[in-house]
Amino acid sequence: MSRTKTSIKHTVSQLLSTADIRTEGDRPWDLRVHHGGFYDRLVASGSLGLGESYVEGWWDCDDLSGFFHRLLQADLHERARSLSPLAYASAAIRAKILNPQHASRVFRSGGAVHYNLGNDFYRSMLDSNLMYSCGYWKEAESLDQAQTDKMDLICKKLSLKPGMRVLEIGCGWGGFLKHAVTRYGVRGLGVTISKEQAALARERCDGIDAEVRLMDYRNLIHSNERYDRIVSIGMFEHVGPRNYRTFMKVARHCLKPDGLFLLHTIGGNRSDAYADPWFDRYIFPDSVIPSIQQIGRSIEGLFRMEDWHNFGPDYDKTLMAWHSNFERSWAEHRDQLGDEFYRKWRYYLQSCAGAFRARHIHLWQLVLSPQGIPGGYQCVR
Amino acid sequence: MSRTKTSIKHTVSQLLSTADIRTEGDRPWDLRVHHGGFYDRLVASGSLGLGESYVEGWWDCDDLSGFFHRLLQADLHERARSLSPLAYASAAIRAKILNPQHASRVFRSGGAVHYNLGNDFYRSMLDSNLMYSCGYWKEAESLDQAQTDKMDLICKKLSLKPGMRVLEIGCGWGGFLKHAVTRYGVRGLGVTISKEQAALARERCDGIDAEVRLMDYRNLIHSNERYDRIVSIGMFEHVGPRNYRTFMKVARHCLKPDGLFLLHTIGGNRSDAYADPWFDRYIFPDSVIPSIQQIGRSIEGLFRMEDWHNFGPDYDKTLMAWHSNFERSWAEHRDQLGDEFYRKWRYYLQSCAGAFRARHIHLWQLVLSPQGIPGGYQCVR
Repeated sequence: MSRTKTSIKHTVSQLLSTADIRTEGDRPWDLRVHHGGFYDRLVASGSLGLGESYVEGWWDCDDLSGFFHRLLQADLHERARSLSPLAYASAAIRAKILNPQHASRVFRSGGAVHYNLGNDFYRSMLDSNLMYSCGYWKEAESLDQAQTDKMDLICKKLSLKPGMRVLEIGCGWGGFLKHAVTRYGVRGLGVTISKEQAALARERCDGIDAEVRLMDYRNLIHSNERYDRIVSIGMFEHVGPRNYRTFMKVARHCLKPDGLFLLHTIGGNRSDAYADPWFDRYIFPDSVIPSIQQIGRSIEGLFRMEDWHNFGPDYDKTLMAWHSNFERSWAEHRDQLGDEFYRKWRYYLQSCAGAFRARHIHLWQLVLSPQGIPGGYQCVR
Repeated sequence: MSRTKTSIKHTVSQLLSTADIRTEGDRPWDLRVHHGGFYDRLVASGSLGLGESYVEGWWDCDDLSGFFHRLLQADLHERARSLSPLAYASAAIRAKILNPQHASRVFRSGGAVHYNLGNDFYRSMLDSNLMYSCGYWKEAESLDQAQTDKMDLICKKLSLKPGMRVLEIGCGWGGFLKHAVTRYGVRGLGVTISKEQAALARERCDGIDAEVRLMDYRNLIHSNERYDRIVSIGMFEHVGPRNYRTFMKVARHCLKPDGLFLLHTIGGNRSDAYADPWFDRYIFPDSVIPSIQQIGRSIEGLFRMEDWHNFGPDYDKTLMAWHSNFERSWAEHRDQLGDEFYRKWRYYLQSCAGAFRARHIHLWQLVLSPQGIPGGYQCVR
């Protein structure tokens, strides 16, 4: 090994050791490096190289979530940016020049690609209601309960009453819509850009007062309908900073003046215009995690913020439950999806779990109102 | 009356009527205009002219809080900006060129002037603990109880434990410091820039484990002490947008990595660099109400937001309780403060109450942590 290679390996190992991670250790969160090119690749392409080299089997780790928890808690991702600025720069430039979430591109963007992976696959990973967003674990002991409790939390925060018209922006497989309509007696409309999601959502909402439309949320601006309540669960991450204002204008347009809008989204500690490059390429193309500043700017003059709830650590539990379901049912999907997918998916679920555990990212529920609730909004937790 | 004057009067009356306010009505929130120059003055100098002409007795209103509630709820302040842009423009220019809250100016700025009005005056208006900030009325039926409940709410949100070191930035007359030290067994330091507040705070904290320092918060950056908890109650409004980042850096500097910081502040729906011109001139010089966007920007990379609570309507109740105390005890202060002061103070308290009632401004409590609480923060309400 050349002196340069030795020096790079030393630098990376030193950096990781400040987060209590060893490159050749035997604790669950330590790395076992199989390929000598790992260190160069990490330095050359940062988080993209870290993920790609994992998927290709250059290194292993029994507890990837523990690895990422330590990595992010020690802010190594910030220090690593100086080691591999190129990967970050290219994502930043792309976000500045393009509007990756522009309406003309949206049916081939993140939402559609990711969620069209196959409903059967998600059935084996998610809870029985197919909720692909953070559960609420305050009182729950199972994923099913956590997802039901999350839906009830949202319904209570919105104080749903029979007969109310509810719009869901990004309705997924219709789990929330069905819950709200059957348990709270509301009349629902859900919109999604995923054909597979729309088809299953329609099937599940058959015979109840819920409609599902395959449409871009931006086209709601042409709608004459006004809703008592609006909810958007885990969809704002696909909107993109250049469209936050448009998203909020659409929501404001569709909401009655005395209505409520609940926004459920992952949130980040910093204002970024772009996503982690590995996630952008392999998991959620064109998705960006919003910051407080970005959300604050997007609602000015449109909404008043009634309540802002952060229960990010519940996403750690949710992701670990999904991971456990994924591992358990992998044999059913192996032939169709292949071994590379297995490593990719494992990396995705566990690195996200670690990021929530490190409080690097959060789960936010905001309750917004156009004019402010007279006398104030009563928090529900 | 000339045609122009008639036309201006007509325009103003029309505008007010859209908020269900009459210029010569007999409902409590209607105006009774005594001086024909009122309309011109309103158009020429907007909210400054509205306040000044009230103080000079050009118009009256039995329920000023109801008047402002309707005015702001109908967004007339926005529409009025186009009628009288000059007053707003001059405040904006001043804020851009100057840093009105710069450290070199601070001992003659808002904090010092306002709070040195005389402790006796505040004793007759405020609760028995002299809390000059929003109370918490969830369970309270009196001002005293609302202020005690507010202090307990903060102590519980910060989960204060005996022996903890607590820093209060802007400690007022020491009410919170005394409460936290005597009821929760913490060791306190309070800082303030008001001599009169510091003197009384020291007197009230005599014999307990609480120190009061007369100092600008910015000088805390030179301190080597690290605190388990930091609290700032109703002081951030005096900091100014150009200093928000500095304020947050100071708080981060003084806080232990696993500590908590509770920020209690009035909040606004828009990002402004300047205050309402009447308030700026007569009540709180150099004070600015922060927005979500501004707070979000100021904490990036320094704090994670654990919880954001909005109980703005409680400030309506608090201000109305202060107003009622003020009216009841006015006879004691009349000789010293004079009739103009009476109208000025009445206008201040009631217009603020109306602004909170209209949800034009809010009361926010944020809980912030440097690294995120492992496992998440449990909300207290």
